[in-house]
Amino acid sequence: MSIHAVKRAQCHLAWDNSIPPVLRVKSGETVTFDCLDASNGQITPAATAALLPSLSMTSLDQVNGPIFVESAMPGDTLQVDVLDMTPAEWGWTGIFPGFGILADEFTELALKIWDLKTYDKGFAWFDKAKGIKVPLRPFAGEMGVASGAKGAFSTIPPYRTGGNIDTKHVTRGTTLYLPIEAEGALFSLGDGHAAQGDGEVCGTAIETPMNATVRLTVLKDRPYVKTPHFATNGSTDDPRGSYCTTGVGPDIREAARDAVRHMITFLGEEHGLDRTEAYMLCSVAGDLRMHEVVDMPNYLIGMMMPKSIFSNVE
Amino acid sequence: MSIHAVKRAQCHLAWDNSIPPVLRVKSGETVTFDCLDASNGQITPAATAALLPSLSMTSLDQVNGPIFVESAMPGDTLQVDVLDMTPAEWGWTGIFPGFGILADEFTELALKIWDLKTYDKGFAWFDKAKGIKVPLRPFAGEMGVASGAKGAFSTIPPYRTGGNIDTKHVTRGTTLYLPIEAEGALFSLGDGHAAQGDGEVCGTAIETPMNATVRLTVLKDRPYVKTPHFATNGSTDDPRGSYCTTGVGPDIREAARDAVRHMITFLGEEHGLDRTEAYMLCSVAGDLRMHEVVDMPNYLIGMMMPKSIFSNVE
Repeated sequence: MSIHAVKRAQCHLAWDNSIPPVLRVKSGETVTFDCLDASNGQITPAATAALLPSLSMTSLDQVNGPIFVESAMPGDTLQVDVLDMTPAEWGWTGIFPGFGILADEFTELALKIWDLKTYDKGFAWFDKAKGIKVPLRPFAGEMGVASGAKGAFSTIPPYRTGGNIDTKHVTRGTTLYLPIEAEGALFSLGDGHAAQGDGEVCGTAIETPMNATVRLTVLKDRPYVKTPHFATNGSTDDPRGSYCTTGVGPDIREAARDAVRHMITFLGEEHGLDRTEAYMLCSVAGDLRMHEVVDMPNYLIGMMMPKSIFSNVE
Repeated sequence: MSIHAVKRAQCHLAWDNSIPPVLRVKSGETVTFDCLDASNGQITPAATAALLPSLSMTSLDQVNGPIFVESAMPGDTLQVDVLDMTPAEWGWTGIFPGFGILADEFTELALKIWDLKTYDKGFAWFDKAKGIKVPLRPFAGEMGVASGAKGAFSTIPPYRTGGNIDTKHVTRGTTLYLPIEAEGALFSLGDGHAAQGDGEVCGTAIETPMNATVRLTVLKDRPYVKTPHFATNGSTDDPRGSYCTTGVGPDIREAARDAVRHMITFLGEEHGLDRTEAYMLCSVAGDLRMHEVVDMPNYLIGMMMPKSIFSNVE
């Protein structure tokens, strides 16, 4: 297998299946990405909140790619194995008016610069004097494939094909599954996050440039994957490891219902449960989590089922 | 300290501050409860779905108590330390038309009886032939204090004073904090669950009779606790231990916003953060979880902050 590389400048600002691929790879091949942060390099370690009004908002949330994966056809599933995510030595968190779950109550621009040089220790200081630190769990907020529909779609919201899923669990060791709608899948990645909670409530995470490595594999046997699914592998704050289905859309409750519907389908397809059994299992063992609540107009809600329930070992 | 006991028959069917207490205890005393399941004993280990149409729906979701805690006054906080939760040797999970997050898609009555005699091994078989088992994490779905308002309030939804919070994390080792609205607090407990996921999506958990032991302490220094808060202690699926604030109400997004607002207040009161710092910390380290989405008309959404972030240790 060869390793392919996507460079910083090889990025785009919309999901659009007419954008020419920057790479063609075979199914099962590995790709590395060198990505700027979500400000597209406009925010630097020396920045203060005074910089923010001058940001070009039309060049934010770029994604690197797209990558054409040979043999990928609409209806297939793209398996994305997250092999590595390494943040830069610094990051930032910002509050922007109109963005975030409490946007009406936080109307002032704010910017915090983080020192991530303690990454090898697994955390960054939030406030050393107060004794508060944040565990670092780097991931890419943006991972997605092109829509099957013609046109340019904003990289701000997540879609059923992924995109700005901003889901903290897709760290190293996690496998993401995306429904393919365009020939070649046309996968892109960006929006490095050194740490984030479920929700990303203020609208930003610890935003950082990121070096990422993923393996892209086309699956022909999972037509039931209609939104992003993922399987964690004990590398996150979810040490049990889980399989997660999601719902994506502008209504939180309907997105939660979709996450449950998709878990019921998964339990039927992969574990032979009828719908009533599967619904009960979701209720007694599955966890609804609000992975992303700020990338309007779409919320991303997950149902996480611990893998440990599938075991004959007593 | 003496230990007080509440018997099975000492239960009530509404939150109502005019119900005479069954016990008076001093702050800091321990109370044991012997509780029937949420069907109030109507469902037995021999039951089938054929029984369900004959259930008396007006006697469901009883809670045991109320307990008058001396010195408790409106504006105080009741600290409930969960010392023990022991389920019976059996339980049930049901699907009832009109109840559950997919109520419109699951319109048939269904009932599953569980064998919980493997409780000492930490799990129950869901389907031994298929190799599927569920971890047992017993807790009381109902823990609450009386409303300050006159009248009888249904035990089905959760309120800002607790009640049917159906929150899987309030297992042994967890401490729950409830805002007191009536003199004596008037605490009650019920609705034993041997296991449940965040959400309780089908409308029921593994429902079971339960023996519970809690310690009740009146706090005078937490006026900022306006909805249920809780602190886990590594005894649940959250091995790090977390502090959790909640939002309760008929709109999921507004309940999530309240959970975040209450975490911002907590971080200010207890850790000296200003509002902007606290909002950013929620975004990079706090997790929004949907603890309860079926006890209409109120949802209960939590923001869980890992305790490990509050440490000077590198």
